[in-house]
Amino acid sequence: MSFTLFKENIEKHVKFSADEFEVFSQAFQVKKVAKKEFLLRAGDICRFEGFVTQGCFRVYILDKEANEKVLYFAVTGWWLSDLDSLINEIPAQFWIQALENSEVLLIKKKDAEALYQQIPKTEKLFRIISQKALIAMQRRLLRNHSDTAEERYLQFISTYPQIAQKLTNLQIAAYLGISHEFVSKIRKKIATRKI
Amino acid sequence: MSFTLFKENIEKHVKFSADEFEVFSQAFQVKKVAKKEFLLRAGDICRFEGFVTQGCFRVYILDKEANEKVLYFAVTGWWLSDLDSLINEIPAQFWIQALENSEVLLIKKKDAEALYQQIPKTEKLFRIISQKALIAMQRRLLRNHSDTAEERYLQFISTYPQIAQKLTNLQIAAYLGISHEFVSKIRKKIATRKI
Repeated sequence: MSFTLFKENIEKHVKFSADEFEVFSQAFQVKKVAKKEFLLRAGDICRFEGFVTQGCFRVYILDKEANEKVLYFAVTGWWLSDLDSLINEIPAQFWIQALENSEVLLIKKKDAEALYQQIPKTEKLFRIISQKALIAMQRRLLRNHSDTAEERYLQFISTYPQIAQKLTNLQIAAYLGISHEFVSKIRKKIATRKI
Repeated sequence: MSFTLFKENIEKHVKFSADEFEVFSQAFQVKKVAKKEFLLRAGDICRFEGFVTQGCFRVYILDKEANEKVLYFAVTGWWLSDLDSLINEIPAQFWIQALENSEVLLIKKKDAEALYQQIPKTEKLFRIISQKALIAMQRRLLRNHSDTAEERYLQFISTYPQIAQKLTNLQIAAYLGISHEFVSKIRKKIATRKI
């Protein structure tokens, strides 16, 4: 089941033959991650790129006052990694934690390198995935500078319709960069408006 | 001369044959951009990816109070674009302005697409360039959260040794996200320390 979603997602970007997809998918390992378990801890070297087939992860950093800043929530169909750590083999800055019982497909760096050689179309796939990740980070950065907190909240629920209702005000606050009291206020305001 | 640096830079990532490099480089156009001239204005559709062969550009956005926030300075050897605008054909959010008389090599989207077909190694090249850009943006984002203003200033001068001395306090302030008075204070403090 994990691989059906994975195949669909990948085929949006490149067309693999059945044999190619077989080789490609065998380079990935399925990993179950229990709620609250860490897939990556800052300080460790990140050894994987991952594709979420089930559940949800939060990818966050700790700022200089040790407050959590959520960079993104990786829900079903999203990729996750600490690319700087993976590529440059330096300690990770990101914490990646499952918010619920989740499943990911993980590929190790050396297996990805082997795939680039074996199935050159993999270059195209990761070129597109990297560009999309770059655009997502660009949008995230711009929103923090140009939108009001309420606009950012509305953008957040449209980006994450699957999980917006499940997250606590504290978790959303750590993503929006505002206080949880303010998230609560915005949620109430929007709820009132809908009545 | 423009193409020597370009070739060196590209050959760090992929090995093109002489013929391949010929085809590859012919897909780019040389463009001179005078000091203060804009290569891209927010609101326009970005139609290029560019490689700086000479000079320096600042890539910035305007926040909700219309203050400039510099995302990065693109110096010789750097790539620049508004990828979200280029790929999704939506109005650019970035302003890209030459800080001095500069020169860039530009490739249009359709010419890049043609290169992907004609010389598949181009996929690898842009996969690597995109991953490096993503890492640069990740570092930029982390630094804003985890370093003090003085640490960020020191990081800034080590990232941009070529231009750090040429920029005004105001330009550096727009990159570090602090007031220009504070930049002035840090510069004085560091100068005193060196005596």
